[in-house]
Amino acid sequence: MNIQPKSGTIVPETVTTGPLTGSKKVYYTVPGHPDVQVPFREISLSDPKELPVRVYDASGPYTETDIAVDLAKGLKRIRAPWLARRANLTTYAGRAVKPEDNGDVSPEKLVPPCPAITAPLVGSAGHVTQYEFARAGIITEEMIYAAHRENLCRQSMLAEAQDKLADGESFGADIPAFVTAEFVRDEIARGRAIIPANINHPELEPMVIGRNFLVKVNANIGNSAVTSSMAEEVEKLVWSIRWGADTVMDLSTGRNIHNIRDWIMRNSPVPIGTVPIYQALEKVDGDPIKLTWEVFRDTLIEQAEQGVDYFTIHAGVRLAYVPLTAKRTTGIVSRGGSIMARWCLAHHQESFLYTHFDEICDIMRKYDVSFSLGDGLRPGSIADANDAAQFAELETLGELTKRAWEKGCQVMIEGPGHVPMHKIKINMEKQLKECHEAPFYTLGPLTTDIAPGYDHITSGIGAAMIGWFGCAMLCYVTPKEHLGLPDRDDVKIGVITYRIAAHAADLAKGHPAAQLRDDALSRARFDFRWEDQFNLGLDPDTARCYHDETLPKDAHKVAHFCSMCGPKFCSMKISQDLRAEAAVIAEREKGMADKSAEFLKSGGQLYVKS
Amino acid sequence: MNIQPKSGTIVPETVTTGPLTGSKKVYYTVPGHPDVQVPFREISLSDPKELPVRVYDASGPYTETDIAVDLAKGLKRIRAPWLARRANLTTYAGRAVKPEDNGDVSPEKLVPPCPAITAPLVGSAGHVTQYEFARAGIITEEMIYAAHRENLCRQSMLAEAQDKLADGESFGADIPAFVTAEFVRDEIARGRAIIPANINHPELEPMVIGRNFLVKVNANIGNSAVTSSMAEEVEKLVWSIRWGADTVMDLSTGRNIHNIRDWIMRNSPVPIGTVPIYQALEKVDGDPIKLTWEVFRDTLIEQAEQGVDYFTIHAGVRLAYVPLTAKRTTGIVSRGGSIMARWCLAHHQESFLYTHFDEICDIMRKYDVSFSLGDGLRPGSIADANDAAQFAELETLGELTKRAWEKGCQVMIEGPGHVPMHKIKINMEKQLKECHEAPFYTLGPLTTDIAPGYDHITSGIGAAMIGWFGCAMLCYVTPKEHLGLPDRDDVKIGVITYRIAAHAADLAKGHPAAQLRDDALSRARFDFRWEDQFNLGLDPDTARCYHDETLPKDAHKVAHFCSMCGPKFCSMKISQDLRAEAAVIAEREKGMADKSAEFLKSGGQLYVKS
Repeated sequence: MNIQPKSGTIVPETVTTGPLTGSKKVYYTVPGHPDVQVPFREISLSDPKELPVRVYDASGPYTETDIAVDLAKGLKRIRAPWLARRANLTTYAGRAVKPEDNGDVSPEKLVPPCPAITAPLVGSAGHVTQYEFARAGIITEEMIYAAHRENLCRQSMLAEAQDKLADGESFGADIPAFVTAEFVRDEIARGRAIIPANINHPELEPMVIGRNFLVKVNANIGNSAVTSSMAEEVEKLVWSIRWGADTVMDLSTGRNIHNIRDWIMRNSPVPIGTVPIYQALEKVDGDPIKLTWEVFRDTLIEQAEQGVDYFTIHAGVRLAYVPLTAKRTTGIVSRGGSIMARWCLAHHQESFLYTHFDEICDIMRKYDVSFSLGDGLRPGSIADANDAAQFAELETLGELTKRAWEKGCQVMIEGPGHVPMHKIKINMEKQLKECHEAPFYTLGPLTTDIAPGYDHITSGIGAAMIGWFGCAMLCYVTPKEHLGLPDRDDVKIGVITYRIAAHAADLAKGHPAAQLRDDALSRARFDFRWEDQFNLGLDPDTARCYHDETLPKDAHKVAHFCSMCGPKFCSMKISQDLRAEAAVIAEREKGMADKSAEFLKSGGQLYVKS
Repeated sequence: MNIQPKSGTIVPETVTTGPLTGSKKVYYTVPGHPDVQVPFREISLSDPKELPVRVYDASGPYTETDIAVDLAKGLKRIRAPWLARRANLTTYAGRAVKPEDNGDVSPEKLVPPCPAITAPLVGSAGHVTQYEFARAGIITEEMIYAAHRENLCRQSMLAEAQDKLADGESFGADIPAFVTAEFVRDEIARGRAIIPANINHPELEPMVIGRNFLVKVNANIGNSAVTSSMAEEVEKLVWSIRWGADTVMDLSTGRNIHNIRDWIMRNSPVPIGTVPIYQALEKVDGDPIKLTWEVFRDTLIEQAEQGVDYFTIHAGVRLAYVPLTAKRTTGIVSRGGSIMARWCLAHHQESFLYTHFDEICDIMRKYDVSFSLGDGLRPGSIADANDAAQFAELETLGELTKRAWEKGCQVMIEGPGHVPMHKIKINMEKQLKECHEAPFYTLGPLTTDIAPGYDHITSGIGAAMIGWFGCAMLCYVTPKEHLGLPDRDDVKIGVITYRIAAHAADLAKGHPAAQLRDDALSRARFDFRWEDQFNLGLDPDTARCYHDETLPKDAHKVAHFCSMCGPKFCSMKISQDLRAEAAVIAEREKGMADKSAEFLKSGGQLYVKS
């Protein structure tokens, strides 16, 4: 999926930097771990009685004040000291870049390699992956980091946190009142969470994906047909995380993808996911039938060395399942799924992703690349939801989950797609059961097919619901889904829609600190603190702009009425007046009650004898 | 709530007319009822094997081809012959318009009265309201009309309809495979549905609101501060219904509201709702304390004579409930609720809406104005959801529902507001129980407070869910909610978001004909019939425009690949190729099987002796 600049907008020379309006970046240094500094976004409020609100922040150093970005140098390698302390990681020469890695691009059109690249690390025996550390009872710096990110303000509200949990409905999730690194470790060891963190991605700010943590959001990006600059490609990543994407999938195809991926990896603070079969297909001239295990294997190593944090592997599309899609309304709609189905049918052989699955595990384990087991047979329409093909594949994904765990790998499972509301919950329940509680990662789902142009909304509904039911990460859908390539505005709308879905899910599950932001915003709204209301929102600029359209004057930003109804009809104003009035009445009634008590104390005589 | 023209757009001289792209208006004449002609929108498809798709159409005659609109004349009075056949309706002089009805506007600024107005009808004893007819076992033309609208294509799919119903989850709703006029009558008689249809609104195309029918959507409109033309005001209505609003609430305040309301009523094919307390407040200079029963009563009669189809009456805001809101995060956020709370507290008296409720019923019955019992104490934030004040009022609304039914009136109940996902279902369940299954009509609910500028989405999620759980009508929320006045684009986005929510709910409930449109669109998508895909969508223009942005050429509208991935990566293309290939393989295997059968028939000898 590509992102096109909005027609008329200027292609960025560099990337977007600086804090969101009204926010500043703060880092919390974990006691006893001077090299674990956890980022938050802090929103200061105009009312001195209100504490600043700290929110989860996946935007990386780009939202620091006065950040100087040097894309050629890449981001600070915050994990380097942690990785250096791990005995069984060794540096090696790495695989040489081949012309086909960049789509055999002619030298004059070749995107230059990113100067920040270094020789790759590889793991040997012992503990390499977060799963292996967790199983061995060892807490990594990544676990500590991720745990502290999750807590937000929970430290200061432990008693209240218990109430919030009790108030929510988590459908059997085990959300703790306070997240410890040990809890993160235990969840990873049980396979219920992952920290996608390739050992060759030292720039990563680690984050955890699992049902007992905050719901996460993924945004997809991809290269443009004509790449004008590396900055433009990195900007797609920076723009996505600025608005709240927790991970980014690079779905680039075509020329220069190897070199562009290096630029992205070296400048990404979030986990990057890819679908290696796309690049493998490029290497065989786009003909699925020509794909081989060898080409695929080589591509896995290539991308693992670059630092990709998770791979979508469509190993559940087995030969026997392909005929199950024959009578579908929309056949196979996953690109990876259709490529593999075509290969299986043409060769009349079991998928090489399935037959070579153990070898795939061995490669991914050595770099701690997490599995995102792809749902190549996900439904592409309401008519095909929850059918035999979809569920057959899901069962195979469950089998593969166990095999990957045995090999020491981290695993999450991809899910649909197009599913009407009443069929969403069974997807979550079946995934938990078949895949042994490995984290679920769904695309939407879209709850109807009838709104092309608005599929961020049709899918945002399904995403909120499945997030509530237990889905750990939601892959965004933009308004351009099914129609065209998203531009910057589409990406922003897609990410914000999915942040809404994820947050609505967190609230419904009873996540202890989730409601703090809602409450702070609602108090600002009731107090007519307009600037605070804008800044506490997911998109301060749009909120302010909408207010300006109706009441442009600065004075209106402190107006004690709502712009929609005007002063006379402002219910909040009347309600505030009413509260003041009620206080007066209460005071008066208290006075009368005092008088009455005095009267009774005096013996109840109406006239006290003098 | 007002609608502002988008800055830069031209204020319409007339209203928007003509069919949506790819559609045409058709009328179905009910056998035996030549004057009952039910409108549908028919979408023709390019594939001759595909039947045209008929969809529900609330847009009125404005979307006919070559319609000539004359706002001064008003719409055709399709109900006039039906009403003329009812014995106990009489024409009378009606209440004289008073200067305060138009906000004491100066003569030079007075909007002229609509020439289409006529002397009002009033009902006497006997059957006046749809509820009274229904209770007496009499099927009205309105019931026949509404029944046929609901069926869409159900006639042709009765067996399939049963399957769809069985496949859905309707949470106890009694949705029939086929809607008959008798079913509509029975639902109205049981109080489970209403047909808002003032006897003074003969231009109305009747529609039914109830849990066992398609989920409906309401849009709010209001006058601008400076009214430039009557056409501009009517256009707000026409624009809302063009994109799918089933009813429209006119929330105008200020000058000229009486005369503007006449222009709207005479040109509205959909039920119009109002909140009469707004106009009553204008008549007492905007001071809630000065409100009296007499002013309110006079306003009810004024608006009932004009033909308003339903009134929001906040009679559940009782004096005793006001203190329950004192500790709320956002107090009282309903305008009507805060006005009445202020009146109650200032006078320390029970609300006159409550004490005079029987008289209100008597007035509304005479014109068949339906009750929309207002939720004046609805929560305005996640923090206040489902609190004591909200539920105390809901119980009172249940009591008032029974009283209104006893008086022969139709009733629906308004609901919240701001509610996190896990607290939505209890709202529906409690409403059904307390209000004896009277239809529920909710504003959203918004599932989080943190996204000002995107509250169509925060609320669209809640609306889809409560629609599924049984809510009969969803009041839209635009992106400008909490921030400013919606413009034309905002209204369109709001209506379409809510059509998505309503349709997603219909699908999930298993409404028999709902999925036909999804399926037709998905087939078009799989067949690369781009134009059909656009035209079957809720907004053909936006879908086409998005496709044009990426693949502008006309040739691409017949391209056999998806614009997002290009021809090489188009899963649908691969999937189609695959289907063709599978057919060849099946043919080949069948050939071998035939050979094999022949061989066995020949006695199993490998070589048949010649």
